[in-house]
Amino acid sequence: MSLAESRPVRGGSAKGRPRSEAVERAIVEAVVKLLEEGVPLSELSIERIARTAGVGKATIYRRWRGKEELFVDVVRAAEPPDADLPGTSMRDDLVALMEQLRRRGLMTRSSVLLHDVYAQMKSSPKIWAAYHATVVEPRRRLQVEILRRGQRNGELRADVDVELMNDLLVGPMLLRTVMRPDADLPEGLSELLVDTVLDGLRPVSSPSVSSPSS
Amino acid sequence: MSLAESRPVRGGSAKGRPRSEAVERAIVEAVVKLLEEGVPLSELSIERIARTAGVGKATIYRRWRGKEELFVDVVRAAEPPDADLPGTSMRDDLVALMEQLRRRGLMTRSSVLLHDVYAQMKSSPKIWAAYHATVVEPRRRLQVEILRRGQRNGELRADVDVELMNDLLVGPMLLRTVMRPDADLPEGLSELLVDTVLDGLRPVSSPSVSSPSS
Repeated sequence: MSLAESRPVRGGSAKGRPRSEAVERAIVEAVVKLLEEGVPLSELSIERIARTAGVGKATIYRRWRGKEELFVDVVRAAEPPDADLPGTSMRDDLVALMEQLRRRGLMTRSSVLLHDVYAQMKSSPKIWAAYHATVVEPRRRLQVEILRRGQRNGELRADVDVELMNDLLVGPMLLRTVMRPDADLPEGLSELLVDTVLDGLRPVSSPSVSSPSS
Repeated sequence: MSLAESRPVRGGSAKGRPRSEAVERAIVEAVVKLLEEGVPLSELSIERIARTAGVGKATIYRRWRGKEELFVDVVRAAEPPDADLPGTSMRDDLVALMEQLRRRGLMTRSSVLLHDVYAQMKSSPKIWAAYHATVVEPRRRLQVEILRRGQRNGELRADVDVELMNDLLVGPMLLRTVMRPDADLPEGLSELLVDTVLDGLRPVSSPSVSSPSS
């Protein structure tokens, strides 16, 4: 898979010195090769990965604590890189984060491997937990931090819980990318989504009309 | 399962006369019994269901075209009933629809059977397609119709696509109920979600500030 080859492995748990990067890449590529050959995740043993990569088992264990951590690094190498936050405004940072989710959605649709890997990962509680802890949770914390900054700067309402605000932004994008694999993911969707959630759905002519319940 | 017993089977594909309702109920309960015994969906044959219900196979085929349609009716009998739309305003109708999703989420968490059934259904493309056609798609059409009415009445902006608006409302609720099974689903969430999406996330003091891109 060219994706894994084109970028360095970003594994937080990898302890290798710079010159061992080639070894790490060979190991990640061995996992990708086995997955592409149709070997199910549950049958991917460290023995088999070591044999395919032409290294000893200890070489793998020196870099990753186990199959779960290694596998999460394989997924991260295949995913789009983390978003560069422009920092010009909360709105622009949110658009960049949504754009990362949109690009990951498009990539998952075009990559049979990535598609299968997500599906298998979700059916393996241990690997899903490792992916959640290293990828999902840090991203979520970053999003919430950006929203908190927006509240402090006056870009966001202060009377709404940031966790709910985060779900209002992320929910629609995940609905289209993860839950509804045939949904439209056009260019400009991230901007439109963020701006519409910020502006609200009420007609602009009566922006201060409060809802019946409030 | 008491849920299936407490309400009539709502199968659109069931052709029975009133007096055959008991037979339909016996068949639905036979499926529930087999599922509760741990029989996987893939092994639930019409033969086995007929034997468990004490009816002939023809009795089942007279009411349902196949396993998929029958199974969707089993799921619908276990789910919360369709929302009663108050019709007082678009906002109130949207709250009722969100509340139905929230209640279904809570029920799925407390019902091992319903939880398993959704998981198995999603891994069976034919049954998922039948559920989608009979449950998901009609609900989606109803939601979009309510939003279109809101646009005509001036309750909603006319410059945003109703499909996107629908995803802005449904996405956050599905994120919490389906994708994140440990998320908070408190009382009042449906009202808060609808009102926040309608009002937008910008501070109330500057409601007419437009976004940098618009």
